[in-house]
Amino acid sequence: MALYDKVMELSKRRGFLWPSFEIYGGTSGFITYGPYGVILKHNIENLWRDFFIYKQENFIEIETPIIMPSAVFEASGHLEHFTDPIIACLKCEKRYRADHLIEELTGVNVEGLSISEMNEIVKEKDLKCPDCKGALGEVELFNLMFKTNIGAYKGDVGYARPEAAQGMFVEFKRIFNIMREKLPLGIAQIGKTLRNEISPRKGVTRLREFTIMEVEVILDPEEINNCPGFEKYKNTSISLLTASLQQKGEPPVNITIEQAVEERLLDNKWLAYFLAVSKSFVKTLGVAEDKIRFREQLPHEKAHYSKQTIDLQVYLDGQGWTEIAGHAYRTDWDLSRHIKFSGVDMRVFKKTEAPLTVKKLVLKPNKATIGPDFQKDAGKIIGELNKMDPVEVKNKLDSQGFIEVAGRRLTSKHIEFEEYEEVVKGKKFIPHVIEPSYGADRLVYTALEHAYTEKEGRVILKLPVKLAPIQVMVYPLVERDGLPEISNQIYMELLEKGFRVEHDVSGSIGRRYARADEIGVPLGVTVDYQTLEDKTVTVRDRDSWSQRRIFISELADILKQFFEEKISFDQIGYPVNKIE
Amino acid sequence: MALYDKVMELSKRRGFLWPSFEIYGGTSGFITYGPYGVILKHNIENLWRDFFIYKQENFIEIETPIIMPSAVFEASGHLEHFTDPIIACLKCEKRYRADHLIEELTGVNVEGLSISEMNEIVKEKDLKCPDCKGALGEVELFNLMFKTNIGAYKGDVGYARPEAAQGMFVEFKRIFNIMREKLPLGIAQIGKTLRNEISPRKGVTRLREFTIMEVEVILDPEEINNCPGFEKYKNTSISLLTASLQQKGEPPVNITIEQAVEERLLDNKWLAYFLAVSKSFVKTLGVAEDKIRFREQLPHEKAHYSKQTIDLQVYLDGQGWTEIAGHAYRTDWDLSRHIKFSGVDMRVFKKTEAPLTVKKLVLKPNKATIGPDFQKDAGKIIGELNKMDPVEVKNKLDSQGFIEVAGRRLTSKHIEFEEYEEVVKGKKFIPHVIEPSYGADRLVYTALEHAYTEKEGRVILKLPVKLAPIQVMVYPLVERDGLPEISNQIYMELLEKGFRVEHDVSGSIGRRYARADEIGVPLGVTVDYQTLEDKTVTVRDRDSWSQRRIFISELADILKQFFEEKISFDQIGYPVNKIE
Repeated sequence: MALYDKVMELSKRRGFLWPSFEIYGGTSGFITYGPYGVILKHNIENLWRDFFIYKQENFIEIETPIIMPSAVFEASGHLEHFTDPIIACLKCEKRYRADHLIEELTGVNVEGLSISEMNEIVKEKDLKCPDCKGALGEVELFNLMFKTNIGAYKGDVGYARPEAAQGMFVEFKRIFNIMREKLPLGIAQIGKTLRNEISPRKGVTRLREFTIMEVEVILDPEEINNCPGFEKYKNTSISLLTASLQQKGEPPVNITIEQAVEERLLDNKWLAYFLAVSKSFVKTLGVAEDKIRFREQLPHEKAHYSKQTIDLQVYLDGQGWTEIAGHAYRTDWDLSRHIKFSGVDMRVFKKTEAPLTVKKLVLKPNKATIGPDFQKDAGKIIGELNKMDPVEVKNKLDSQGFIEVAGRRLTSKHIEFEEYEEVVKGKKFIPHVIEPSYGADRLVYTALEHAYTEKEGRVILKLPVKLAPIQVMVYPLVERDGLPEISNQIYMELLEKGFRVEHDVSGSIGRRYARADEIGVPLGVTVDYQTLEDKTVTVRDRDSWSQRRIFISELADILKQFFEEKISFDQIGYPVNKIE
Repeated sequence: MALYDKVMELSKRRGFLWPSFEIYGGTSGFITYGPYGVILKHNIENLWRDFFIYKQENFIEIETPIIMPSAVFEASGHLEHFTDPIIACLKCEKRYRADHLIEELTGVNVEGLSISEMNEIVKEKDLKCPDCKGALGEVELFNLMFKTNIGAYKGDVGYARPEAAQGMFVEFKRIFNIMREKLPLGIAQIGKTLRNEISPRKGVTRLREFTIMEVEVILDPEEINNCPGFEKYKNTSISLLTASLQQKGEPPVNITIEQAVEERLLDNKWLAYFLAVSKSFVKTLGVAEDKIRFREQLPHEKAHYSKQTIDLQVYLDGQGWTEIAGHAYRTDWDLSRHIKFSGVDMRVFKKTEAPLTVKKLVLKPNKATIGPDFQKDAGKIIGELNKMDPVEVKNKLDSQGFIEVAGRRLTSKHIEFEEYEEVVKGKKFIPHVIEPSYGADRLVYTALEHAYTEKEGRVILKLPVKLAPIQVMVYPLVERDGLPEISNQIYMELLEKGFRVEHDVSGSIGRRYARADEIGVPLGVTVDYQTLEDKTVTVRDRDSWSQRRIFISELADILKQFFEEKISFDQIGYPVNKIE
């Protein structure tokens, strides 16, 4: 059996994760986390928070809705760009990813081809439906966002977010204010994200519903190479597969992030810094260094908002190098668009050393048109207009063609604008954005696959101690002679002290150990007949299967030190048979 | 200003929560959590886990998808029952909640009226659109689930879940197996839930997207009064407003949960037990005892699956008694329906003391029809049929009218069933379900409102220590003379040791204290000129504004004890001016 199948079989049987809705035949692209999977996922999310929020200065977390009104995605460009080409069979009505189908049927590399170029291939090669041999229709763009209606009005269209990022952008102004207007500002979010994939893959690699972990690092573009954390990580070496190496068919280079910036392989120091942080994070999940690499997205792969995107890939059995994170330099794309579409000024002011000459806009109500058009309201309208921000008024007029003042609609014929130059001691700018973005589900699977080992025909899930869903399993050797009462006391004490602990009472001790190894429980505590004599228990190591004895009275303190990684297993208690 | 408005203003200004999509004019029913709101919400969720998962035996958490295929909601009854009556204006097309509109315009109490009864009132009283005075259409049922399509096929309808519960029911069989087939089994879930409300209320009381925290306690109906936790809580007194008291217009009674079960005011002990657990949980959020009561839902209010539902209500300013949790006895409704609709047997086997006589079903392939209808496949079909579970085959035939065997469709004419009696040592049953269900967002607001206090014209958010988003704020008295360097060291040490801590450097110390009070930070640590002399700092109490001094070397340990609620503020260090 392939490693992938073994990991998925274990995941299902032991309660990590499995495909959802099985009793109704399943719906691909959706997974369920069982009792151990949920804790593993939360542990990974919290470790991510540690690296990407808590250890960063002025980084915070927010939570925004999954369903958002269409205005957000018009501005973000997702309505226009977040699409895949599809093609339908005119006979059986089955739909395919057009690019995948053409590649499959013709072997032609369609990367970067336009819709009309794909249509030409379909006609030229006279491609048919592989299922029923029927004729194929035209290649079309299919938007990958789940669409719905908000409220009882048919017109109020909303979409499930395909990324968490837009929630951060639309809230930028308020968060910036709450955080006392300091840049760089990191706004993070962990939450559900949905993409209506046409052909979800097996397992967790391309899900329709998944958990994203994203930080939008919002900064002054003039400070994009002023990254305080860079110094500490500058000698971190990464395996980097640039776009140009891919185009030449060459393997990745090993290079420090400092060199990569110097050689202009990476756009800037903030982007480079996060590659190093990401590598460090992924290593703590138990992924070996040689199974981690960074791949630059090719020009035609990049999202519409990105200047440079570097994926972090890990090597997975059967799937090869698989993207588990992206690091995108989104520039000012998103904030510019939201400023334009909402008419709200989200620019940031900064003082400049030397005075600057800037262009200013003045708004002039056109009394010649306002008077006749609005009669008795004219005075009030002019009064209000004079209090408004000229830039916002102009943006609104440009974007929606009118502006509402005192309950009346004014168009460009009612307002004139004049530009003049002014000397100021600061300037307003649209911040830029660097975005590290992770898929939590892929990380869960990666951690499981990289922890999966076999020994003497049995499975051991060697999860890093920090990730293990259950830290300690407590056992009575047998279910009689007062042993379960003692083990229950130990279980209750460890539970009370905040350990993630289970009490496993029934069945042969060998089978119970085997189950704990499969769940990845680092330590087992066994109450046996010697316990009745000297109040000691054995502690069993998942990875080596070796055992040590320790007094019950010392147990909680020593386990705490073990899980804080202050001592190793060999420093727990005493060798077996050496206590008297 | 009303308390509600004060709390919402503070929430917005200080980064707890506010209405989403403000820059696009807002969409009601959606909120955003800012930096402090996210942490407060997570703290409440984790406290809930403590009460409803960790402290309960054999209770675990899972995570299932938000989008589910329509088959799930056909079975659960939500497609049919999860509706509100709406009525539209034929002229301006505005839509209203029909029951609310009729009550508003006529004063008639429409509780429990049918659609046709409401239509009669509309005609009889000749009701018009309150907005444009246009004629109104017919009252119709509007389904409150957000609808979407899964994949590129138009036919694959999916819905966003209106409760987490269905995720637990469809996964029951697998979880039961993973948890080694023990009942009672508690399956919990915390996650996003969506309801397409026609008229969301202001604030957080009726949201379209919210976080639900639910446990489905799955148990043997014959053991519904065998609740191990009941003993400990039986003397807990609750304020209980039964359906019958409401119908008589009488106030709630104060009664212990034991009495309430004895007097049959509560259906069973498991339900009663959770009312007591809920009361204890809500008190730890800072809600005073006299602001908590339990109200039984009236017959016409109860969801279609419920035998008895008891809401937990808290008193909120301006909104009165507000439901923040429901406790429903869902009986075997959900599991029965999923068994019927999926054809999968999810019954549980139990041994019986005495042997039982049970009815058994035998499946007999009808060779007289199978032979002619399926010719050469007949032998294979009969062979496969004999291996299948008769009950599952019968269920499938009953529900979908056919069954697929060896790739062919068989109907009831191909299969006969015979019943006979058998003596067995056990029986299969469909488990029953008790469900405590919480809205996390309402709890966040409740905690904020109940913590909101004013003192000398300033706001103090007296959140319980366990809930406070930030535990410690560290300050230099002034931003010079080496004080910020020392305070930064203290900040870094506390951060490293896992405290939720912030470093607030700039501005007058009074303003910084005021900000911390508004965020609800229990303790402030200030580095001042005396620190330079004797390595002590002051610790300031949010609630009393009093201060004590402590050596920096002792700070982390003492703070840890304070936040574990082992010592009170007066036991921290020494009174100010008493250190030499």
